[in-house]
Amino acid sequence: MTSPAREFSVLERICRPGQLEDSRVLIGPGDDLALVRAEGRGDVGGAEILVGVDQLIDGIHVDIATVGWSAAGRKAVTRSLSDIAAMAGRPVSIVVSAAVPPDVTEASAMELFDSMKETASQYHAPLVGGDLAILKEGPLTCSVTVMAVPPPQGAVTRFGAQPGDGLYVTGQLGGAWRGTHHLTFEPRLSEASMLRAILQDRLHAMLDISDGLGRDAAHLVERSGLQVVIEADALPCRDGADVSQAVGDGEDYELLLAAAGEVPEGLGACPVTRIGTIQERPDPDAPPVVLEWNGANHDISQSGWEHQ
Amino acid sequence: MTSPAREFSVLERICRPGQLEDSRVLIGPGDDLALVRAEGRGDVGGAEILVGVDQLIDGIHVDIATVGWSAAGRKAVTRSLSDIAAMAGRPVSIVVSAAVPPDVTEASAMELFDSMKETASQYHAPLVGGDLAILKEGPLTCSVTVMAVPPPQGAVTRFGAQPGDGLYVTGQLGGAWRGTHHLTFEPRLSEASMLRAILQDRLHAMLDISDGLGRDAAHLVERSGLQVVIEADALPCRDGADVSQAVGDGEDYELLLAAAGEVPEGLGACPVTRIGTIQERPDPDAPPVVLEWNGANHDISQSGWEHQ
Repeated sequence: MTSPAREFSVLERICRPGQLEDSRVLIGPGDDLALVRAEGRGDVGGAEILVGVDQLIDGIHVDIATVGWSAAGRKAVTRSLSDIAAMAGRPVSIVVSAAVPPDVTEASAMELFDSMKETASQYHAPLVGGDLAILKEGPLTCSVTVMAVPPPQGAVTRFGAQPGDGLYVTGQLGGAWRGTHHLTFEPRLSEASMLRAILQDRLHAMLDISDGLGRDAAHLVERSGLQVVIEADALPCRDGADVSQAVGDGEDYELLLAAAGEVPEGLGACPVTRIGTIQERPDPDAPPVVLEWNGANHDISQSGWEHQ
Repeated sequence: MTSPAREFSVLERICRPGQLEDSRVLIGPGDDLALVRAEGRGDVGGAEILVGVDQLIDGIHVDIATVGWSAAGRKAVTRSLSDIAAMAGRPVSIVVSAAVPPDVTEASAMELFDSMKETASQYHAPLVGGDLAILKEGPLTCSVTVMAVPPPQGAVTRFGAQPGDGLYVTGQLGGAWRGTHHLTFEPRLSEASMLRAILQDRLHAMLDISDGLGRDAAHLVERSGLQVVIEADALPCRDGADVSQAVGDGEDYELLLAAAGEVPEGLGACPVTRIGTIQERPDPDAPPVVLEWNGANHDISQSGWEHQ
């Protein structure tokens, strides 16, 4: 018996703890980005580098026939930059590769790369390397690697939430894929830096919502015995999206954070909404993420969008 | 009229000089790797980071049905590490992404990622991030991003060759694809570091031979008015490969370098052979790379292997 490849089981294997014995790896696989230490020249100084890779595939993450090459290029870059925001980092540069179907015109390929380059530059993440291959068959497959530096206070991981923390989200949730939000969103780089600077060590954990609030909230407690409790009435729903869409649609690219003490209600034009609490899990079999909705508790740990 | 996408014209656009106005970019696109400056934490120190991306696609760079998933994973990583050697850098880490066909078993995907992880670790380039997507159709497409630090003497670019420099190559050339060399080669990381340490500033230019000696030698003079002259009789041909194979086969992943003064004839078990000279181009229309063979001069500037 052989079983088909499954994204999570294969990647879990890469992330398996205990296999990284390199002291330069400060945060290993499994977070939004890894953090590695690079030596400075001549043994002076050095820097900590955030790095991670994400793919954008036609027919899975975007429909190029509908939205065009330029929108696809923008999304490939912004969704990777959103991972930098999730760690509160500052972009250093990006490199991209693309494998395109054989019938793609040179003009379309140029449009794709020009859009990636321009978008990257707009967020101060100069595109410094690229690779293009022409496929014999198959859809556009784009891979974007981002490099960043942590903020002065240090990068924020997914895993530091503590009992009693409030759970907060930037912007609004739901309906991102049906509308244009997944193509036009601004990665929350500035908001993340501001939150880190304002909250300092009270900002315990952060990630960006791509799969969906339910599944992404589960990441916050996957290395602890804690539980996320979300109040349905508090959810900031986007343009008429309902609660179940806000919880499960994904593609929001908003920040989800756990913090102690007071958190500002907004940052510039961006609202920051308290939507729940982190608490001890009542028993070991309790769901990692619970939605309090109409007087009942719902397990939403699996609520999210499979990009397939 | 629309024309099909062509790798070089699209990538040339990315590399177009004058578009990079970010002072953190020390070496832009167009070399084996880019070099960017990353700030240290708290404005102390900082580091220069070499970074670049390369793809490996089933049916183009490897035939998985013949060689298997593990060999494909190894090659995806070693060919990217070879770019680090070309700059005389030292690996820091790698991140990988893969898009696999729908019929790939979990065992095969695991084999691929395990092989990439193990190979990376073997060369002290810990794999710190990965992404896996399942395609609806199309071949395995693997993208490997490498990060490295320059040696104490600084990275070696492709473009510093000077008139009178000798042209040298490590190892042997030719027949790499018909044999197993393209699957089993060792990236010349140590040799490159040794050459940089021994030759210091006399090591003017370096790259790794992937496309083929002719085309890759042309890169050495593409930003100058110089000419590469290669002597056929001097070429170190691999296991019965002939001169035209040594010149055009590619996939050697050997170092090609231009240096002034004396160069060691070997580094450990690795031979270093003088195969030619850098000189002023006799006239502007003269070919960038000339092969002296049987008393005649041949233009081999285009000799190499299109991976398609």
